[in-house]
Parts: sequence; structure tokens; C-alpha cells
Amino acid sequence: MTAIPLADRGLLLGDGLFETLLAVDGQVRHVEAHLDRMAAGCEALGLPPLDRDGARALITAAPGAAGLATGRAAVRLTLTAGSGGRGLDRPEAPVPELFAACAPAPPAGAPARAVVATVRRNEGSPASRLKTLAYLDNVLARAEARAAGADEALMLNNRGHLACASAGNLFWLDGEGLATPALDCGVLAGLARGRVMAAAAGLGIAVREARAGIEALATARAAFLTNSLTGVRPLVSLDGRALGEDPRVAALAAAAG
Amino acid sequence: MTAIPLADRGLLLGDGLFETLLAVDGQVRHVEAHLDRMAAGCEALGLPPLDRDGARALITAAPGAAGLATGRAAVRLTLTAGSGGRGLDRPEAPVPELFAACAPAPPAGAPARAVVATVRRNEGSPASRLKTLAYLDNVLARAEARAAGADEALMLNNRGHLACASAGNLFWLDGEGLATPALDCGVLAGLARGRVMAAAAGLGIAVREARAGIEALATARAAFLTNSLTGVRPLVSLDGRALGEDPRVAALAAAAG
Repeated sequence: MTAIPLADRGLLLGDGLFETLLAVDGQVRHVEAHLDRMAAGCEALGLPPLDRDGARALITAAPGAAGLATGRAAVRLTLTAGSGGRGLDRPEAPVPELFAACAPAPPAGAPARAVVATVRRNEGSPASRLKTLAYLDNVLARAEARAAGADEALMLNNRGHLACASAGNLFWLDGEGLATPALDCGVLAGLARGRVMAAAAGLGIAVREARAGIEALATARAAFLTNSLTGVRPLVSLDGRALGEDPRVAALAAAAG
Repeated sequence: MTAIPLADRGLLLGDGLFETLLAVDGQVRHVEAHLDRMAAGCEALGLPPLDRDGARALITAAPGAAGLATGRAAVRLTLTAGSGGRGLDRPEAPVPELFAACAPAPPAGAPARAVVATVRRNEGSPASRLKTLAYLDNVLARAEARAAGADEALMLNNRGHLACASAGNLFWLDGEGLATPALDCGVLAGLARGRVMAAAAGLGIAVREARAGIEALATARAAFLTNSLTGVRPLVSLDGRALGEDPRVAALAAAAG
């Protein structure tokens, strides 16, 4: 497949899902966990069950097909609700479209300078806990960061609670241990987020899911971002103010692998 | 154009805009007003200025090209941010894609039975005041309505204030006159909404923009929905409870044309 029909609901309405996976030397990491998450997303959106075998085949073939069988590469798997229906209403039996692409991956672990975006995360929609094709709020948040000369944007939800970065989960270390926004703040259950939480438990660091305002970062010892492509990225500044460092960030990055 | 590249940002991220226009016997209504709104949306999203001449040509040719030069038809104009960039970041100079399609239009003025959706409107994003391709929340809200045997879904925002229907604006009549949710509730400035507000003023009915909870509809004399395709639709029930009737609804529908 090289193009998608103009009537596709992913294109017209953001009706679909995606996953972004890291490949190293042609080997795609955590394939089954990503497929699990997309399958759960299909169920949450009321779409037909994911064709796991088809999706796996697209994912594993993507690095080689793109000439990226060596080094680090980013595989994106996209699922749309397919064509049909009228306006917002889906057809009786949607026929999803599935495709994958592969591009060079950004470096892992690069320190990030962030700003707080004005665009809020919609904690009142299940889509805020899924990787859907309706990702424009994240595009707008990232654009705010770039316009401010920063790398990433932190997004608050409409209650004013910390949610996530435009492309990643947020963590901070404080006197109580490691904290990350709760999923009901409008947060994707990131796979790297889950690995970091497990690594913290293994290192004896208390982990909690928090509903906290931006002031939590003012008193934090250190903060970092996570996603599947770039792993653990220390957050070195927020709105131009330097944040602290903590040796546990590197320990967590190493343990979360 | 019959298909869109797999790298298109409208497809991958919901990065784009649309308009839905009514055509009657091949004549598309309110073309310049729709182009004005899409042009304003391009500016709000940081996209290049709209190619108004190209868009107008696509719109006006659409009914005939679809064999719908007689009767009522729905023209959809879609603009995407085009291909390129990496991940969320747009390319330096985006090259938008623009295309139009035409389908038979639903009937005008049909009474609507609505339910209140669990999916909330994101008042904290500028996208909630634009017709963007990231429309999944509206798809999910509409699906809730269909699952409940209803025609439409009313969406509250995260503050619990009434915002809109999944595909239209909301109005109600009460002792003070005509009310509709304020734009900062997460509301598109619908063109039919604007015509109804102007018609009310012309009929001597006081109009106000409101920040109100669902209880406002319990005490309303009547309520209705508006959009460009179906005009004024009386809201006859909400969550299974019958709503009142008021002769001013038909008067507003007639005056708003």
C-alpha cells in the first residue's frame, strides 16, 4: 500500500490508532507489548479486533524495507477505521486499514528543555489514554515548545494537573520517591513508563501515581521524560528555569533498559 | 486526486481542517463564509494561508462531479498539513493538501433525540473551537448516542458546562430568551449558529452566550441543534425525557434560512 483512499476515516476524522516502536539493527523491540496496547485500543474505540499477525508482519518487515536494518530506527504502525459510514457514524462493519513505515530514530537519552504548553490534555476523553490518530493537541503543544526554543512541551489537563509531554510520559523524584501522573489525568500508559515504574520498584524506590499541579516540579529533585524511542530523557529546564539532577535518573534509565 | 500519501500529517496526526457545506441543486451555500472560517483555522493552527481560489474551485465542482447536481447534497472540503516533518514536528514549509467530496445530504430539520455523552469536550485546546481532522471525540460521542438508540450526543466540557452536539451547536429557549454555549466552553463558531443568533435579534428575542450545566435544559421551554447541513433540528428528548416545544423554534428556523 502506498496511499490511502480519500474516504478513509483515519484521514477525515482521526478515527484510528498508532504505535511507535524502536528497532535496533533491524530488531524491533517489545513488539507483543505494542500489539497488546493497540489491540486494547481497538476494543476501547469499538473497532474490530486487531489483526495481530498482519500487524506483526508489517512491523518486522519495516526496517529492512526502509533500508534501516542497521542502527536505531523508528517503526510507526498505523491503523485506521477504514472507509465508509456517513459523517461521524461508522459503517456497520468497519474494515480497518493497517500500514507501517520506518524512519531513522532520534538519539536516546538526550536532555530535554521543556515549556508548559497552553494547550490542555483532555482528561475527559478515553482518547487521552490511547495513541489515536487525533493527535493535533500534541502537535500544537510541541509547536509551542519549538516556538519557545525548547525541545518538548509539558501538558496540564483541564483541572490544572500535570499529564504528560507532547510525546512521552513525565516522572519526577522528590522526598517521597518517584512520581508520575495518574492515567486518569489524561495519560497514555506508556510502555517505557511501565518499565521505569517496574525498575524503580526493583531499585527500592517508592513509586506513586500522582494528581499534582505544576508546583510539584518546583520542589522536585529531578524530573525526566520517557517514551519507547528515546528512553529516559532528563528534564534539564522548565520554562527556562534549571531543574536539579539526581543519580537515580541514570540508574532508572539503565534498569529500565 | 484519488488518494493521499501514507506520510500525510492529516492521516497520521489529525493535523488539518475541514468544512461541510450544503449544496442545493448544485449551488453550494455560504461558500465565502466557509472559506473565511477555514482560512482563520489555518492561521490558528500555524498552517500556510488557505488557497481560497483552489478551495472554491474544488467546492463548486464537487456536486456535479459526484452526479449530485439536483437535490440536497453535502460537500466536504478537507485540508491537511501535507507530508513531511519528523514525528510531531512539522516541516519548515508545510505544503497542504486540499480535496473535496460530495455525498447525498441528510434531511433538514428532522427532530433529534439526544443523550448526554460521557466523552467531554476539551475546552482547554484551541482545536475545540475549530473543525479539525482530530475529530475522534465527536465520533465516540456519536457512537454513544447510536448505542443508546438516539440520534445525537450532547457534549459537556471538563468543567461540566454544556458545549455542543457531536455535529452541531446547541440552543435553548428559557424565560430570559435564547441561549447557546459560549465559545470558550469548547465550541465551534458554527455558521448556522451565527445565522440563528442574528435571526433571534431580528425577531426581538434576547440572545445570550452561556456557561451552564445540564440543568439548564431541564428548565428550558425548548431546545434545538444547528449545523450547516440540517439547519435547525428541534431537540425532542434528552436521555429519554421529552423536552418542550416552543413556536419560536420554527420562527427562528424560517428566519435563519
